[in-house]
Amino acid sequence: MAIRYELIKKCKQTGARLGRVHTPHGSFDTPAFMPVGTQASVKGMSPDELKKVDAQIILSNTYHLMLRPGSDIVRESGGLHGFMNWDRPVLTDSGGFQVFSLGGLRSIKEEGVTFKSHVDGSKHFISPEVAMQIQNDLGADIIMAFDECIPYPCGHDYAKKSLERTTRWAERCKQAHKNTEKQALFGIVQGGVYKDLRVQSANELLELDFPGYAIGGLSVGEPAEDMYAMLECTVPLLPEDRPRYLMGVGSPDYLIEGAIRGIDMFDCVLPTRIGRNGTVMTSRGRLIVRDAKYARDFSPMDPECGCYACTNFTRAYIRHLLKVNEVLGIRLTTWHNLSFLLNLMKNVRKAIIEDRLGDFRNSFLGTMGKKW
Amino acid sequence: MAIRYELIKKCKQTGARLGRVHTPHGSFDTPAFMPVGTQASVKGMSPDELKKVDAQIILSNTYHLMLRPGSDIVRESGGLHGFMNWDRPVLTDSGGFQVFSLGGLRSIKEEGVTFKSHVDGSKHFISPEVAMQIQNDLGADIIMAFDECIPYPCGHDYAKKSLERTTRWAERCKQAHKNTEKQALFGIVQGGVYKDLRVQSANELLELDFPGYAIGGLSVGEPAEDMYAMLECTVPLLPEDRPRYLMGVGSPDYLIEGAIRGIDMFDCVLPTRIGRNGTVMTSRGRLIVRDAKYARDFSPMDPECGCYACTNFTRAYIRHLLKVNEVLGIRLTTWHNLSFLLNLMKNVRKAIIEDRLGDFRNSFLGTMGKKW
Repeated sequence: MAIRYELIKKCKQTGARLGRVHTPHGSFDTPAFMPVGTQASVKGMSPDELKKVDAQIILSNTYHLMLRPGSDIVRESGGLHGFMNWDRPVLTDSGGFQVFSLGGLRSIKEEGVTFKSHVDGSKHFISPEVAMQIQNDLGADIIMAFDECIPYPCGHDYAKKSLERTTRWAERCKQAHKNTEKQALFGIVQGGVYKDLRVQSANELLELDFPGYAIGGLSVGEPAEDMYAMLECTVPLLPEDRPRYLMGVGSPDYLIEGAIRGIDMFDCVLPTRIGRNGTVMTSRGRLIVRDAKYARDFSPMDPECGCYACTNFTRAYIRHLLKVNEVLGIRLTTWHNLSFLLNLMKNVRKAIIEDRLGDFRNSFLGTMGKKW
Repeated sequence: MAIRYELIKKCKQTGARLGRVHTPHGSFDTPAFMPVGTQASVKGMSPDELKKVDAQIILSNTYHLMLRPGSDIVRESGGLHGFMNWDRPVLTDSGGFQVFSLGGLRSIKEEGVTFKSHVDGSKHFISPEVAMQIQNDLGADIIMAFDECIPYPCGHDYAKKSLERTTRWAERCKQAHKNTEKQALFGIVQGGVYKDLRVQSANELLELDFPGYAIGGLSVGEPAEDMYAMLECTVPLLPEDRPRYLMGVGSPDYLIEGAIRGIDMFDCVLPTRIGRNGTVMTSRGRLIVRDAKYARDFSPMDPECGCYACTNFTRAYIRHLLKVNEVLGIRLTTWHNLSFLLNLMKNVRKAIIEDRLGDFRNSFLGTMGKKW
């Protein structure tokens, strides 16, 4: 097996899991947040800076990399690790989510999905086999089965048909995956917001015996209660000795609530995307540092933060940089947001060790209110 | 006096000067190249990275900072040093060059220049007194007199009238400068490509006794021979114990030829600007790393360079980043170009110490051809 999940302990207060995933490129602590490097770069950050904010694993996107530069170039460069000069673990998604959210004029058939590139309109095709070939080229430590990510809302009938196809696709992915020694293939539980379908999907995928399981199709617009309900009916079905990955989730409240429900891994563009828009997460909630009211504010973005941005630069300076489109501005907001979220995960892990993750949640979310 | 120029030695082969300028924020070695931080940021670089590439002094622009964020905010932030978190020397220009190159619908009168902002079309006025007030707010170690930068080509009559006004403005700047203990005001020799006017301008400014002298209005389109001729008739008139600054010059050949003609300081957006366009300076000449032919080139941008970009990333990766507009791409090309030019200046200084700057020029320009 390419990876191994080590369960270190469970929080007595919540049941949240503290663990470690061992991969061919080293280990990462769980619950883990994975910064997103869509196009083989976490926007604005260098690999060294990612290490400074303590990113232990990053994610990159099959859909974008198949279009540019093409997976063959990444393969010839030594895979994503060589291409990016990143020696820690990497996870790639399957392209499924982007095909359904970015690709134009899709045609979904049993064989696979034909779509138009968002870059130049050219026609492309992804099937389970293509997704595996590309991800084998990219060489990530963890790769994802090709799935259909249904929109929200979606009727029960279509959600059921879709998850059953996702199961068939998962089986084909397993067959097509060529590098099982060095790359662990995760199955993705689908089923929309329907408990019976989530259970069906999980049970079908469990029979295929994947080294890890993701929960997909959430955080796509459904109420938080629905997401939590889906986790509560799915996670208990998943094997204790495999990592569980909640895809596309990255707001502080979701990260904590996900961990409490037994999730080990998360990813989201939230910290990098809102950073580029001039918004930062702080110990006092969200702060739109781009706002005019910070023009003369010579305090750090987050007075309680010890990151490079907060220990060296003022809100006034960062606001100026953002207003005049200086790259350093988005570098600093991105740096801080990643630092903030990765530090949050450290605090979550610490709270699990000390059996007080419930208290931590109440205290953290109490301070923050619903500002996320 | 705010600054002191220390002449360490002259190159026996060329007469080029090795020196050091002592300022309230430390010293810098000359001949020096100053990276340009137009809007209080050297595009793409953090202050720490500027130190890593050995930038000993940087330049920032009065015109841009008076528009955004406004010099009062910079002053309240502790001047540019505090605002940017840069503790080494800073030089600000007077706004003159930008008013004439960027500002729309100018009206030039004896009192000063009225222009429209390139940002929002709003109307602004800069006079010698305004330029001094703003630069006193910005707090740079070296500040520049407000001058008229004439276009190329320009007739002798206008060039003469203009330089004489520039002299009168220089005198007003000297009168208006409020912080002579901590900020050294340089006069700017003008006169177009006319030797008699350069001599006239230099002599007029010498009477005003500035702590340093700049040569402006060159590298604006005139042939290289004209620039060299202007340096050759001007520099010998300037005092040995004051630094000499050739404004807006930054290509490797001009830097070397300028040093040979007795120049101590240079600045230019060239390395940062061409870097953002995907072009890098290398030991083998210019390289357009954005070109398709580097898509599968897994060698460094410059195999002889030891900078962060060249020791960690391939042409193929950097080309990909540039093609897909990832910020890390322009960060790496900028980093390399600044590293290359600042390293060139180190080599120039070393060649002066060893009395072989002429040999160094022949060897360097011979290798590079006319590719700059």
